[in-house]
Amino acid sequence: MKQMNSIQDVETVALDTQNRALVIIDQNRLPNHVEVLHLTQQKDIRDAIYLLKVRGAPAIGVAAAIGVYLAALEIETVDYPAFCRAFRKAKDYLAASRPTAVNLFWALDRMEQVVLQHSDSPVEAICDLLQAEAIAIREEDIAVCRQIGEYGLSLVKPGDGLLTHCNAGRLATVKYGTATAPIYLGQERDYAFRVFVDETRPLLQGARLTAFELCDAGIDVTLICDNMSGSVMQQGWVNAVFVGCDRVAANGDTANKIGTSVLAAIAARYHVPFYVCAPTSTIDLATPTGQSISIEERPAHEVTDMWYRESMTTPGVKVYNPAFDVTDNDLITAIVTEFGIVKPPYTESLRRIMGKGQ
Amino acid sequence: MKQMNSIQDVETVALDTQNRALVIIDQNRLPNHVEVLHLTQQKDIRDAIYLLKVRGAPAIGVAAAIGVYLAALEIETVDYPAFCRAFRKAKDYLAASRPTAVNLFWALDRMEQVVLQHSDSPVEAICDLLQAEAIAIREEDIAVCRQIGEYGLSLVKPGDGLLTHCNAGRLATVKYGTATAPIYLGQERDYAFRVFVDETRPLLQGARLTAFELCDAGIDVTLICDNMSGSVMQQGWVNAVFVGCDRVAANGDTANKIGTSVLAAIAARYHVPFYVCAPTSTIDLATPTGQSISIEERPAHEVTDMWYRESMTTPGVKVYNPAFDVTDNDLITAIVTEFGIVKPPYTESLRRIMGKGQ
Repeated sequence: MKQMNSIQDVETVALDTQNRALVIIDQNRLPNHVEVLHLTQQKDIRDAIYLLKVRGAPAIGVAAAIGVYLAALEIETVDYPAFCRAFRKAKDYLAASRPTAVNLFWALDRMEQVVLQHSDSPVEAICDLLQAEAIAIREEDIAVCRQIGEYGLSLVKPGDGLLTHCNAGRLATVKYGTATAPIYLGQERDYAFRVFVDETRPLLQGARLTAFELCDAGIDVTLICDNMSGSVMQQGWVNAVFVGCDRVAANGDTANKIGTSVLAAIAARYHVPFYVCAPTSTIDLATPTGQSISIEERPAHEVTDMWYRESMTTPGVKVYNPAFDVTDNDLITAIVTEFGIVKPPYTESLRRIMGKGQ
Repeated sequence: MKQMNSIQDVETVALDTQNRALVIIDQNRLPNHVEVLHLTQQKDIRDAIYLLKVRGAPAIGVAAAIGVYLAALEIETVDYPAFCRAFRKAKDYLAASRPTAVNLFWALDRMEQVVLQHSDSPVEAICDLLQAEAIAIREEDIAVCRQIGEYGLSLVKPGDGLLTHCNAGRLATVKYGTATAPIYLGQERDYAFRVFVDETRPLLQGARLTAFELCDAGIDVTLICDNMSGSVMQQGWVNAVFVGCDRVAANGDTANKIGTSVLAAIAARYHVPFYVCAPTSTIDLATPTGQSISIEERPAHEVTDMWYRESMTTPGVKVYNPAFDVTDNDLITAIVTEFGIVKPPYTESLRRIMGKGQ
């Protein structure tokens, strides 16, 4: 455990090979405390994911890959079938930490493939391959985000006002983020963006995480409440909106953090381009439209009394607390992937871009 | 001071003639404590307005009218010019409590007219007339809100889902509220509305006041965060939106609590009628369009750390915190006044309805 005030010199998720540790920033303590955790025990790694100390689909995937590699190192057998069984057990243990995060399963499955494809190799060699795979998953995340940043940056110009929602930032990935990647790359090139950050009720990922990480990088940030997006757009302060996404359907309908659809509608009203930043791993051609995406509902207390000294509403009032909403494809100006910018009609363009990745 | 759990048997603002007291519900203590204050001292009355113990433009007007009447009772002279001077001093003292609330000046000016128009009457008789005027201002507020409720109710049907923003409720008026008047009248007539209430960041008037007062009246209320309006409309749960207003310009552009313009845009997107409830006292034909309305900006701490144990964002982040925004007239389906329902084109229809009041 190490205490500091900035995240400039640390990465969201990393592997400490010498100490055989998963290294993460504890996101529950942000923005008031930057605390870097070195986790070596499986229970601690699982709890870190379960308790949202590490969050954001890409970051969770990388953490799980590193976690299951560290678990493999602890397996005390050189017998391949026994090793396989123990590995599967460790994988299932981590997979149970957050049942809905797609990247978690994707990363763990990718790690398991390494084990399954090397049944002729000694266990020690398999462990080396697992380490390489975990590092590859981590490096690929950085590269994908950076590429999304390059394409996103091509859509805006120096001095632009940008608006983002929730945290699709470096804290949700290894580095750069998805929606924030164009902002960070612009910062490297003196674009002097003015960035507006929605606080993102109820869990305030915008206020707690995005405002923090962008300020920490020296970017010009203005925090607003979610309902102020119309006001800043009316005044002409926003040239483009960048958001992340949890799933893109085959027709371009996009599930993302609650409030995204409202932001898209107000952006359309004021003719502000609305861009969804999506690694192709979040594009799901098997889901035809947004209507097929099931939306997680979360507990009432997040809305009624999170962090409050006393409840801020009347006891027993009903609360509707969906974690996500679906933005209709016609409100999305373009979807920015690591392979390029996808424009309407999305049914054709998404199928084309997914072909590129194969 | 009296402690209870419901506001059913109390009114937001009242005059206790026997005890010469202004009686209000302390809105700063809601929703966790219903505390009725009996205020007799001018300093206490002024502080109650200044500190938002009584809030909402109509309620402030009534409180000021009662307050200045109580001040007149304390003036120890029967000499008319001396009485006038003392009355003006009391009026100015109350007027300084909230410099931007229009109804405060309107009510105090109306009270002063009583004094000025009865220079031939004995002071005691003037005090009786002042009492009658304060009671009239209060009764008119009830009647105006009830009439807005009748017209508003004609726009919806039993079982409808309604959505409201901020508190344009009975707590902002003497009774009924403006945006909530159709809801209360529907409740009297078993309309079985399902009402969605925006929490209304940053000061949470929706969660703290509207959810409380509607639940207290036995109405079916669901609290949502402001950014969930799109989600509930997508699902077809909302048949109409009712909001209050702070000023309606001559062309129908409407200033109201921050977020109203966003709500109007999302309502238009999902073809949900958007109704502004406006006593004609808030229609300002001297203001040509919404662009002429100056918007109050409030302090950053309301966004960054209201009620929190520690700041929920990074220290020193810039914050933009406008208290109001302007909803463009083309997003407003109708404006509901005490004289009837006003429809586009508003430049003509608003001038017509204002003629009715004269």
